[in-house]
Amino acid sequence: MSAHDPTEPGGADLDAVRSANGAFYDAFEQRDLDAMSDVWEHSDRVACVHPGWSILTGWGAVSASWYALFDGPQRLQFIVTDERIVVVGDLAWVTCNENLIDGGATQAVAATNVFTRADGGWRLVHHHGSPVLQRTPDHDT
Amino acid sequence: MSAHDPTEPGGADLDAVRSANGAFYDAFEQRDLDAMSDVWEHSDRVACVHPGWSILTGWGAVSASWYALFDGPQRLQFIVTDERIVVVGDLAWVTCNENLIDGGATQAVAATNVFTRADGGWRLVHHHGSPVLQRTPDHDT
Repeated sequence: MSAHDPTEPGGADLDAVRSANGAFYDAFEQRDLDAMSDVWEHSDRVACVHPGWSILTGWGAVSASWYALFDGPQRLQFIVTDERIVVVGDLAWVTCNENLIDGGATQAVAATNVFTRADGGWRLVHHHGSPVLQRTPDHDT
Repeated sequence: MSAHDPTEPGGADLDAVRSANGAFYDAFEQRDLDAMSDVWEHSDRVACVHPGWSILTGWGAVSASWYALFDGPQRLQFIVTDERIVVVGDLAWVTCNENLIDGGATQAVAATNVFTRADGGWRLVHHHGSPVLQRTPDHDT
């Protein structure tokens, strides 16, 4: 199997994807549309599922959703945990838990982020976040 | 850009991924553990998020979840719509809407499925399903 062991530390690709994933959450937390725009590939193939939303497809719809979210009153802080990265060629996918602090409340969101390698960097092509309504035991060994 | 246009019909890779995605939902609907096992890659890097659940990682945890789901009383029928497939090298990701018919009720689930090419076929390495709690306009052009 050509994939990296996701538990293995290091690796230039893993570091680059980890950095790209971090840039996504930094842009989100800072409500920075320009930074969010830089994170994403601008194409018809991108898609985004915000927690509880239906699927948005294409950069037009995805960018509009970020504009709407950042224009709203909700200010979030993220603590991203359990980040797992798999790189296969020019594609990588990341799973992580977004622990959102929204005022006094916390909310757990399970996230999938898919990145593609482009021009020496990695661009987000797919984000899927979903509310965690029930904690399940993780039998990961 | 090397990716296929997801709206473009045909293409052997697209057909093969579409078939693998269909096999996943067939196994789910038929509560067929053997078929579900055949759909997935059996490795530590696989992950699965059932609607409202936290992230399960590794084939052990993922397979246990299917065992538990199929052992329960819930029988689902799926109508899969809005399937979009992107193939990049040996990896593909699919987005689709799972329209679940559970007795008389229907529930929309937004799904992301990631497949890897292996031994001439495609194996599921990541499934993320999330409840659609609010319909959003899709500005896809």
